[in-house]
Amino acid sequence: MHAVALKRFPVGVPCAEDFVIVANDVPSGDAGARLRVRYLSLDPYLRGVMSGRHMGHSMALGDVVPGGGVAEVIDSTTPEFVRGEFVQGETGWREEAFLPADRLRKLPPDVPPSTALGVLGMPGLTAFAGVRDILQPREGETVVVSAALGPVGSTAAQLAQRAGARVVGIAGGAKKCAMALKFLGYDACVDYHRDDFGPALQLACPNRIDCYFDNVGGRVLETVLQHLNLRARVVLCGLMDQYNKSERPPGPNLGPVIAARATLTGLVVYDHFARLPAMLDELVPLVRSGRLKYLEDVAYGIQATPDAFARLMRGENIGKAIVAL
Amino acid sequence: MHAVALKRFPVGVPCAEDFVIVANDVPSGDAGARLRVRYLSLDPYLRGVMSGRHMGHSMALGDVVPGGGVAEVIDSTTPEFVRGEFVQGETGWREEAFLPADRLRKLPPDVPPSTALGVLGMPGLTAFAGVRDILQPREGETVVVSAALGPVGSTAAQLAQRAGARVVGIAGGAKKCAMALKFLGYDACVDYHRDDFGPALQLACPNRIDCYFDNVGGRVLETVLQHLNLRARVVLCGLMDQYNKSERPPGPNLGPVIAARATLTGLVVYDHFARLPAMLDELVPLVRSGRLKYLEDVAYGIQATPDAFARLMRGENIGKAIVAL
Repeated sequence: MHAVALKRFPVGVPCAEDFVIVANDVPSGDAGARLRVRYLSLDPYLRGVMSGRHMGHSMALGDVVPGGGVAEVIDSTTPEFVRGEFVQGETGWREEAFLPADRLRKLPPDVPPSTALGVLGMPGLTAFAGVRDILQPREGETVVVSAALGPVGSTAAQLAQRAGARVVGIAGGAKKCAMALKFLGYDACVDYHRDDFGPALQLACPNRIDCYFDNVGGRVLETVLQHLNLRARVVLCGLMDQYNKSERPPGPNLGPVIAARATLTGLVVYDHFARLPAMLDELVPLVRSGRLKYLEDVAYGIQATPDAFARLMRGENIGKAIVAL
Repeated sequence: MHAVALKRFPVGVPCAEDFVIVANDVPSGDAGARLRVRYLSLDPYLRGVMSGRHMGHSMALGDVVPGGGVAEVIDSTTPEFVRGEFVQGETGWREEAFLPADRLRKLPPDVPPSTALGVLGMPGLTAFAGVRDILQPREGETVVVSAALGPVGSTAAQLAQRAGARVVGIAGGAKKCAMALKFLGYDACVDYHRDDFGPALQLACPNRIDCYFDNVGGRVLETVLQHLNLRARVVLCGLMDQYNKSERPPGPNLGPVIAARATLTGLVVYDHFARLPAMLDELVPLVRSGRLKYLEDVAYGIQATPDAFARLMRGENIGKAIVAL
């Protein structure tokens, strides 16, 4: 049994050599479950944890990398969970784990277990809180979503579309944009790598932008702000543009926010755990019936984890990055 | 009779030589009033108008500078206004003007007429909308206000204080800070010129910052964002920091906004004209009884207008900048 530990603090974009595969010692405990991890979740926020910049976590060299996982119960010392059952919890990047019962979540039946890390997990809840509770798009409005193929963006986009909005994605590269249209139902998708990104975004949003779900910050955010409608709403949810930078870069000029009388709201999913039941009530049936789409970028085996994380941080993944063990 | 026209487009901070005193030709019209202007309003937004950057106005060389004024009716062709009455309207920087009746506003009785340009005018309405409708400070919260002695900031601060908040001003220089405490009742005031502005602000806000009324942008905004409480509210209302710059500088890194789950809202007073009666109902009695304080920076005579505007744009004014004619 193996785990993935931090070998050195990444400088810039992480590479596989920043990590090391180590033996996975799993202590047992009371009132919990011994778990065989089936899927690991790779998430951009972990880059901040590795730099000591994250609000809730930090880590030392040699620590096993934290993160969510979906696991099968192989032994249980609590009546709540039985052998063979699938659960979700903060396993970290390891093949086996032990977690107390109060830190495990049962999975909804009849959906692929890996969805508990994406569309039906924290990313899905992030999208649900951002769209339903903050942006509240109305029929006919234009909603723009960056990181359009990721689990937050793709779920946010479909929730906005279900509310009657026209949804425009932003993604890196023509291939991703084509996939956004074909597999996720975006009304349009704009490639931010293009030199004419600003004009292309303007063309894709002829009625300007009423809502923006920002997962990236940087030049993309700055460009979107220049095309806001009056009283536009913006959710600030991620800063992929700066996670790999050692200095915190300046942000966008805020003149356009004043001119548009816009509202920018910071979103951290931790505040919205109380909405999880409502989110699952609504989204599980949609996933089960195929009406809510999602993309997964699957790597295989614990050894593939460091490279898969590096690909995520280079933006080369397509959909929710997970590792199947 | 004279007026002030734009002689050349200012580069950087405007100077008196950017303007020229010209003869003031006043055409007459139907259903309006011929006005002898008594007070001119000098406002930072005019700098944007002079650069073609303002959303609602622009001007050409040789144009009389626009802006609000308080005037006495010297001749009227409408029954609504009578000779000798004081009115407020967009007179521009001139000694005499003619305005149609529907663009004139009567002044409340028993308050100094010049207040219609500051605490009881657009700046007061800006503060009222920002504090009452957007920030909504609660008892015991910490509210920070920049440009603390200006008509927007000083009114916003007192409205927040009346709601039971602890109010901390930000101003440029020790003299302004002392005046903020002595004449406007701030609980504390921090000088942003100090090298230790960040630590000083932190010291003045031991419970961090719940609401921020931003009139300046730039480094002040960036510093305040680093001391926000969870779910803080920020009104973005002015960008004094950049009005004199030819390029639009970058803004603050928005990571702290996400971390604080804060909300930033752009405020433009034009949206809030419907609140003017409510604002006057509440603030006129407070001004009349001396419970709502305000500072005025008065220059005298039309010839003094260009230099007074330059002083305003250098931040050397103390209180609402007006010219008494």
